Amino acid sequence: MSYFGSVSTVRFEGRQSTNPLAFKFYNPDQVILGKSMREHLRFAVAYWHSFTGSGSDPFGVGTAIRGWDQYTGMDLAKARVEACFELLNILDVDYFAFHDRDIAPEGSTLQETNRNLDAIVALIKEHMQSSGKKLLWNTANMFTNPRFVHGAATTSNADVFAYAAAQVKKALEHGKELGAENYVFWGGREGYESLLNTDLGLELDNLARFLHMAVDYAKEIGFDAQFLIEPKPKEPSKHQYDFDAQTTLSFLQKYNLLPHFKLNIEANHATLAGHTFEHELRMSRINGVLGSIDANQGDMLLGWDTDEFPTDLYSTTLAMYEILLNEGGIGRGGVNFDAKVRRQSFEPIDVVHAHIAGMDSFARGLQVAAKMIEDRVFDDILDNRYGSYKSGIGAEIVSGRANFKTLEAYALQNNPIVNTSGRLEHIRNVVNQYIINT
Amino acid sequence: MSYFGSVSTVRFEGRQSTNPLAFKFYNPDQVILGKSMREHLRFAVAYWHSFTGSGSDPFGVGTAIRGWDQYTGMDLAKARVEACFELLNILDVDYFAFHDRDIAPEGSTLQETNRNLDAIVALIKEHMQSSGKKLLWNTANMFTNPRFVHGAATTSNADVFAYAAAQVKKALEHGKELGAENYVFWGGREGYESLLNTDLGLELDNLARFLHMAVDYAKEIGFDAQFLIEPKPKEPSKHQYDFDAQTTLSFLQKYNLLPHFKLNIEANHATLAGHTFEHELRMSRINGVLGSIDANQGDMLLGWDTDEFPTDLYSTTLAMYEILLNEGGIGRGGVNFDAKVRRQSFEPIDVVHAHIAGMDSFARGLQVAAKMIEDRVFDDILDNRYGSYKSGIGAEIVSGRANFKTLEAYALQNNPIVNTSGRLEHIRNVVNQYIINT
Amino acid sequence: MSYFGSVSTVRFEGRQSTNPLAFKFYNPDQVILGKSMREHLRFAVAYWHSFTGSGSDPFGVGTAIRGWDQYTGMDLAKARVEACFELLNILDVDYFAFHDRDIAPEGSTLQETNRNLDAIVALIKEHMQSSGKKLLWNTANMFTNPRFVHGAATTSNADVFAYAAAQVKKALEHGKELGAENYVFWGGREGYESLLNTDLGLELDNLARFLHMAVDYAKEIGFDAQFLIEPKPKEPSKHQYDFDAQTTLSFLQKYNLLPHFKLNIEANHATLAGHTFEHELRMSRINGVLGSIDANQGDMLLGWDTDEFPTDLYSTTLAMYEILLNEGGIGRGGVNFDAKVRRQSFEPIDVVHAHIAGMDSFARGLQVAAKMIEDRVFDDILDNRYGSYKSGIGAEIVSGRANFKTLEAYALQNNPIVNTSGRLEHIRNVVNQYIINT
Amino acid sequence: MSYFGSVSTVRFEGRQSTNPLAFKFYNPDQVILGKSMREHLRFAVAYWHSFTGSGSDPFGVGTAIRGWDQYTGMDLAKARVEACFELLNILDVDYFAFHDRDIAPEGSTLQETNRNLDAIVALIKEHMQSSGKKLLWNTANMFTNPRFVHGAATTSNADVFAYAAAQVKKALEHGKELGAENYVFWGGREGYESLLNTDLGLELDNLARFLHMAVDYAKEIGFDAQFLIEPKPKEPSKHQYDFDAQTTLSFLQKYNLLPHFKLNIEANHATLAGHTFEHELRMSRINGVLGSIDANQGDMLLGWDTDEFPTDLYSTTLAMYEILLNEGGIGRGGVNFDAKVRRQSFEPIDVVHAHIAGMDSFARGLQVAAKMIEDRVFDDILDNRYGSYKSGIGAEIVSGRANFKTLEAYALQNNPIVNTSGRLEHIRNVVNQYIINT
Repeated sequence: MSYFGSVSTVRFEGRQSTNPLAFKFYNPDQVILGKSMREHLRFAVAYWHSFTGSGSDPFGVGTAIRGWDQYTGMDLAKARVEACFELLNILDVDYFAFHDRDIAPEGSTLQETNRNLDAIVALIKEHMQSSGKKLLWNTANMFTNPRFVHGAATTSNADVFAYAAAQVKKALEHGKELGAENYVFWGGREGYESLLNTDLGLELDNLARFLHMAVDYAKEIGFDAQFLIEPKPKEPSKHQYDFDAQTTLSFLQKYNLLPHFKLNIEANHATLAGHTFEHELRMSRINGVLGSIDANQGDMLLGWDTDEFPTDLYSTTLAMYEILLNEGGIGRGGVNFDAKVRRQSFEPIDVVHAHIAGMDSFARGLQVAAKMIEDRVFDDILDNRYGSYKSGIGAEIVSGRANFKTLEAYALQNNPIVNTSGRLEHIRNVVNQYIINT
Repeated sequence: MSYFGSVSTVRFEGRQSTNPLAFKFYNPDQVILGKSMREHLRFAVAYWHSFTGSGSDPFGVGTAIRGWDQYTGMDLAKARVEACFELLNILDVDYFAFHDRDIAPEGSTLQETNRNLDAIVALIKEHMQSSGKKLLWNTANMFTNPRFVHGAATTSNADVFAYAAAQVKKALEHGKELGAENYVFWGGREGYESLLNTDLGLELDNLARFLHMAVDYAKEIGFDAQFLIEPKPKEPSKHQYDFDAQTTLSFLQKYNLLPHFKLNIEANHATLAGHTFEHELRMSRINGVLGSIDANQGDMLLGWDTDEFPTDLYSTTLAMYEILLNEGGIGRGGVNFDAKVRRQSFEPIDVVHAHIAGMDSFARGLQVAAKMIEDRVFDDILDNRYGSYKSGIGAEIVSGRANFKTLEAYALQNNPIVNTSGRLEHIRNVVNQYIINT
Repeated sequence: MSYFGSVSTVRFEGRQSTNPLAFKFYNPDQVILGKSMREHLRFAVAYWHSFTGSGSDPFGVGTAIRGWDQYTGMDLAKARVEACFELLNILDVDYFAFHDRDIAPEGSTLQETNRNLDAIVALIKEHMQSSGKKLLWNTANMFTNPRFVHGAATTSNADVFAYAAAQVKKALEHGKELGAENYVFWGGREGYESLLNTDLGLELDNLARFLHMAVDYAKEIGFDAQFLIEPKPKEPSKHQYDFDAQTTLSFLQKYNLLPHFKLNIEANHATLAGHTFEHELRMSRINGVLGSIDANQGDMLLGWDTDEFPTDLYSTTLAMYEILLNEGGIGRGGVNFDAKVRRQSFEPIDVVHAHIAGMDSFARGLQVAAKMIEDRVFDDILDNRYGSYKSGIGAEIVSGRANFKTLEAYALQNNPIVNTSGRLEHIRNVVNQYIINT
Repeated sequence: MSYFGSVSTVRFEGRQSTNPLAFKFYNPDQVILGKSMREHLRFAVAYWHSFTGSGSDPFGVGTAIRGWDQYTGMDLAKARVEACFELLNILDVDYFAFHDRDIAPEGSTLQETNRNLDAIVALIKEHMQSSGKKLLWNTANMFTNPRFVHGAATTSNADVFAYAAAQVKKALEHGKELGAENYVFWGGREGYESLLNTDLGLELDNLARFLHMAVDYAKEIGFDAQFLIEPKPKEPSKHQYDFDAQTTLSFLQKYNLLPHFKLNIEANHATLAGHTFEHELRMSRINGVLGSIDANQGDMLLGWDTDEFPTDLYSTTLAMYEILLNEGGIGRGGVNFDAKVRRQSFEPIDVVHAHIAGMDSFARGLQVAAKMIEDRVFDDILDNRYGSYKSGIGAEIVSGRANFKTLEAYALQNNPIVNTSGRLEHIRNVVNQYIINT
């Protein structure tokens, strides 16, 4: 059967195509800077939004009309697996990603829950083998169930910590089973509602203990996925501990976890933290921890995580620019659509349209960023702006030979100082030209 | 002469006093938890707001009417020194703090600028000796002059880096000369306007180089002040590098600067970064870097640094709670009023009123926080909430004896899990009772 | 049976009471400015939060543990009625408020839904008669059901508009049946997700048509409740049409609806719109449309509607100040706790604690505001600040006798102009004294 | 002499041009939808940003290097007039706009100030006559001088109200003298810092009195410019009275001023108020008050007015879409660059680059919007979405023939209701295609 109607595989038809079910920019085989678009982008479909999400919000129940609505329990779980691989096939996307609770229903005991999971993991594995599709990453949902009301690794209740450990243990085993290329830690309820009743020090220490145990266990079972932490500043907690990239770096450094983790940067989480997406990517890149991205966009006038499909070409261009400059590009990570169709876009075909929009927007971003790199647009700007550090007193500074006394001696005889314009308005205009003309 | 009219020293008259020029809560000699209020609070007046500030804003020139408006150049600088010590005396405040450019005008060369500074520093030293007043901290203003248009330690122009080094060298020397107990680094223009023309990696590396040079030079001259970095997320830059406490910790750790620096936490900077003041204080405290505070408050509905005098008793109470729990309290730091009278409060007496408001608000916060500590209000809440980590599986976790396998074994037989309420609404009501009844 | 355990009626015990289940400030019989606290405050419990709410959020299912969890369908609806009147009795609160869908489940047809509603309304009426409790207001929930995905009165689908009309028709009839003193229109999904697919003009015209029909029908059936519109700027829609008080006034004026409506102002909606609660109240008051309030508070660092129980004494004091100055006080309106216990406060007793916290906070606000009015604190400030409009050129301006030519003639000979300080820092300190000392 | 170096007139060279000093999209003579680009856009240069602005910010003095820096007083004023007409000529822009205090220095009396103004107005008039350039609008700066510390029309000091009246009287006379096509009221300090010391009712009444006087005086002298109010929500005041379009409409309606005013909508003011630029334009358009625009953009992550030159093609496209749909297009209004070069873009040539960027961005927006109108992209979407209001029950609703009883009767027999998707993701992708392909 088909969960997405009579839609056949979406194909590349070129930018002038008027076929709404064709790619206008995403041509998986097009080679850019020595790699195919497919290799650069490593797109992934997010199971939770596209197969588990209903379109509900705090003021209303779900609106989504789906072919699997008729099922419940394990039948529903199996139908969603079918739907997932159908969509991957339609979109010609190689990867998917899931939380444990997305794919199988909880039972009344952890034993039963794990049995449910095992069964669906086996089913997914079959589909992967027959289709060649791959698991970008899996993770554990430790925020939906009421037991996590006070957190998982940072809960005030040791019994919940233990449960969370058991859950991640199983998730690591499933990741290994399915050959997941990454494993993600998003601390859904790792944060606080109020400092008035929170032992901040204990909670953070426990979070570190938890992550060390995860590292140890992955090593023990030989699961060599890249471990990723996904920063988010708030929601559902009033304050989430992995606020942003640098907060997370601070935590990883303090607890000697830095060698074991990279970051999974999400656009909407970046803006909720007061940063641009490209800021979080750049900060991760220069610290060697840019691991993967969650591709979406927020509404800059709203204060919650809207998880919209990414269509802002400025954002996709600058994101792809950072990824292209990253050593190894996106590496073992990928471009995962942690994005949901709007509540008003409740028809199955909207899921297809939304992924086309997101994939085309990132493909265009890749084209534009690559062209700007080829043309050395930003390289020339930086070479020119920071040229003073290449020789003379600047070279002294960068090489570590200068100190306050030598610099004061220099400054006392160097009058006046001449700066040059940052030329930002012109640069922005150039970016516009590249977006339109590439 | 007098710059604040006929105001005599402000005295403590008790909470029912209707005298607007009396303290209602700040009684410097009152002993709380073993120390006098004076010792707990170590108030400081900020030179820039109270003696250099004019009430200008981006849409208007200054409105402040001051007794020193008649002077210019070095005469103005000298008059301000008089005014500063007059205000310290009126308020019975022991400390003050300044930027180099607050106290003396720039000359046409660095040599002349330094001569101006030397003269005023000598004058200040005389006043300190005769009055017993002390310098909480000094710092270098590296943001007002156009030469810092692209930053100081993170400028794109090596000549400016050298100038900044010379300036901080001098400031360290003056700090030593005046016995400053701290030296503050607030990176006024250490940030970026746009990533499009910014070499983020080089700029951060240079910032670290600069701070290492400062540490080295202070050691060389025997200046043993506590070094403080003051985080701020934005303004004037679109993005400031020392975004918040954890960002700054990340930076200090990466560049091996952590042993040399603590943080100066400002309330309004905290809220601009999306945090409460108490969050930044708690985060600093549990990381051992709570050094000093800039006492003010922002307007939570505005997106810029309003630097209002602190009058919110919730904020002062929770701030003092963190300080009381900090090892050594505020230590060598202090409560510095980095706050300015509103543009509409342009009369000299408003400066006095504003400090009374701020000092009384912090004194009341101290009283309330101390009473809650004496009554073990929060201790009892935490003991109760986190009790599960004191024994059994919780103790296993905290002690490091647990791992994913032992925890899974525990979880598999531990069903159901029972959580307890966080009871936040009741706790907030208790805080209200303490604020009113203490 | 009891849904709130063995809690007996909460009584006033005075501010020093350590009994968590006693009022410390709310003494219903205390007379303030000529009316009892009970009459001033007219507290109401919100059915949706306290009896229908589960503690779910976008990242997790409900956590609330309630005595009525064991029931479903109409049995659940009946149990909730019992629980409501039990809570009203425990708290000694006179009023409650509900949406139609809070009190009874939807059926498979509108006919069945209405039958369910009729049955529960009859049951509620019995309880009201035996207990003397009253309905502050009722309203129609036109946002939870998927049919309202594109709005109700502003839907793009005329069939939905018709359904919404039928729903409000029934709600007006039920309001009449129960003697509701007000009827509230909160436009849950009256707004838009994007202008790209929205006919803004048509949607607003239709909203006005809908409200005119409601006015006409209420008149036809003799339902003389006060009609209230409740502004909110966003959430669930990206943009809600009744953004804030003045936006709503603009709409009411344009469509000749102003004579028929007042406003129900909510604290958290005010702050989401970028205003203080007191701003929205003041703006409503001076325009003669302050009808009722939804008492809660938001988290100023979060961008969504947190609907916390109100405990900020600054906010409750300034809110009660506006209400006391309003002609007729809160009039036919009331102080409705549109507030929910935190997801972590999931025990039934938390609902009691939370209402105690809210009621005490408003009672204290009333005490403080009344004392400031008795002492003419703000009257004196305003008389002094605006005195220049009482005579001379100011009186000419206010009376309408001045024009640009007479004013120019005056200004040309009136040099210099002297302003006086707004004295805000001192005023804030006075407010603190009143909060503590009243 | 030349103030912008050897730059000759900027010409249109087509989208592939690599000449930074050429237009790539703005071709003034290109005809689009029956009018030339020049007529559609009616660009204006803002005197204050480009000739009076210095690049200062709250943390630093000006950085701008300008050819007129060598002058002071009236010589400076005259040099700026030269520079203004030079820039208009370089850019081939027809219009400019100014505040009174931009063009001439204040004297020590109002008489002297007016004499200075008269002299410069005469000089400007000469330049206008010889060049054919026109005044889009003028206005009065009633926010920079300390006398306006408490507001102008909403001041607490009647003497200041009188002065403001005199100032606007003169400005209206100068507007007439120069043939200004519009006159703008931006209430720079018409707002409040705190409600604690504000008589809100009196201040708003006075504002209305002031505007009525202005209307009367313009009529008396035969100045028939379009009167515009420019909404802004905050800054410099904590709350500005003309918060946004609908707030301003509410005010105009209440005080019977609606027939006399239209709105001047600024992009950055819209976003500070929590709206998109296109929202404010649409709201103004459907209320018949879209008069003119201030073209700029804000930084969505910053909370203050950054007044950046507009380069976001999404924003310029949607803005031009609203203007094209407005009856008469931009009419007597224009596209005024209320935008300033970044503080770091301090060279004169940056002013030219910035205007090129802004003009090209709006020209491109015009092209894209016009193409979408020609292709009926949005018309088709709306026709399809709202089709149900064209006949049947929808037509009954729209025509006013339906009421709650007829609608209930319809709803009771109309089951189930079927909605259709809003299709937003696909629509956004189509907009991207238009931006790239037009």
